Amino acid sequence: MKNRIPNLQVALDHSDLQGAVKAAVSVGQEVDIIEAGTVCLLQVGSELVEVLHNLFPDKIIVADTKCADAGGTVAKNNALRGADWMTCICCATVPTMKAALKAIKEVKGDRGEIQIELYGNWTFEEAQTWLDAGISQAIYHQSRDALLAGQTWGEKDLSKIKKLVDMGFRVSVTGGLNVDTLKLFEGIDVYTFIAGRGITEAKNPAEAARAFKDEIKRIWGS
Amino acid sequence: MKNRIPNLQVALDHSDLQGAVKAAVSVGQEVDIIEAGTVCLLQVGSELVEVLHNLFPDKIIVADTKCADAGGTVAKNNALRGADWMTCICCATVPTMKAALKAIKEVKGDRGEIQIELYGNWTFEEAQTWLDAGISQAIYHQSRDALLAGQTWGEKDLSKIKKLVDMGFRVSVTGGLNVDTLKLFEGIDVYTFIAGRGITEAKNPAEAARAFKDEIKRIWGS
Repeated sequence: MKNRIPNLQVALDHSDLQGAVKAAVSVGQEVDIIEAGTVCLLQVGSELVEVLHNLFPDKIIVADTKCADAGGTVAKNNALRGADWMTCICCATVPTMKAALKAIKEVKGDRGEIQIELYGNWTFEEAQTWLDAGISQAIYHQSRDALLAGQTWGEKDLSKIKKLVDMGFRVSVTGGLNVDTLKLFEGIDVYTFIAGRGITEAKNPAEAARAFKDEIKRIWGS
Repeated sequence: MKNRIPNLQVALDHSDLQGAVKAAVSVGQEVDIIEAGTVCLLQVGSELVEVLHNLFPDKIIVADTKCADAGGTVAKNNALRGADWMTCICCATVPTMKAALKAIKEVKGDRGEIQIELYGNWTFEEAQTWLDAGISQAIYHQSRDALLAGQTWGEKDLSKIKKLVDMGFRVSVTGGLNVDTLKLFEGIDVYTFIAGRGITEAKNPAEAARAFKDEIKRIWGS
């Protein structure tokens, strides 16, 4: 059986609406998923989600709210402006996650999903409670700390990702990714690779996105 | 030695700018600290912070971003619009918290502070690393879960708050607070009580805030 080919997601982590929209326009058609990044949401609000949804109605739009509380309200607010997926932070309570999932599905139906952002000292026991609550996407970050210290993805990261996949999660991977680091994940059923500046700050963002897609196809294609 | 009298903070958790601003105007002069709530920041962006700062330049303005990453950028963005304090979520990495602290102090000087929002399974060992990083404010939430199940503040909550105070934190307390529940905290050196709808949805919000202040003075005053 052939593996599914991982998605490519672009993260728009600008501090202004114009910068984010310009980046989205430059690369949106080349990717599967477009992310309204946390920094930008906190600066300009969910108008960003609405603009992205209107520009790319056929793409999946993620509101990276990293929601920690009031999950129902935040999910409803973002879904009404066009978000298909929304993130919750891993240290939110399960009732917050459940409320977010219910609210996003009420607006978006089956297309609506919640993703858990893995930060800090989460445990696999906690992860199982998210699965039990009906949430099946998680986002694994390489720590910025490690990246700044010059490290890259290590065996410890890869084995955690594998374990999450084995548990039943569709796992997104993010943090300092470039075309050359994708092959580190060969053999792992990654659901989505998320890149930000690696795409949006390239001389030609569309070309950079296509290079990611080509390398993903080379590794995970037939 | 007399105890310091706890501050009163109003949280503006509206989904729209007008609602938040109207609530702020109705009660801002009565409180010590005005919070731009997460729900509203994610809806309208840091314009909310700017409006609150301009309306109440002498009050402390908190941007409740629950920042999990890119601490330097988020803190700078909010401080430039007038935030004195900003929150980070407890599962953020210490480098994120440090970057946020550095950025807010660069704009606000000694007035700039970072507060850690306690959600999920944080540990006192982690809390010590925040103190070691120069962060001395924490926000203790009664879980919404417990509140919905009809519980109130229990001995377990109170002993955790006491321990945080003993460690050296200035601790804010929030979650379903009303004038009648303040006395549960008698004998604890709470730094700030945070109330949202308990004040903003009262018939007369200014009167409700004054009732909180009066009860705080009765319990913690001389």
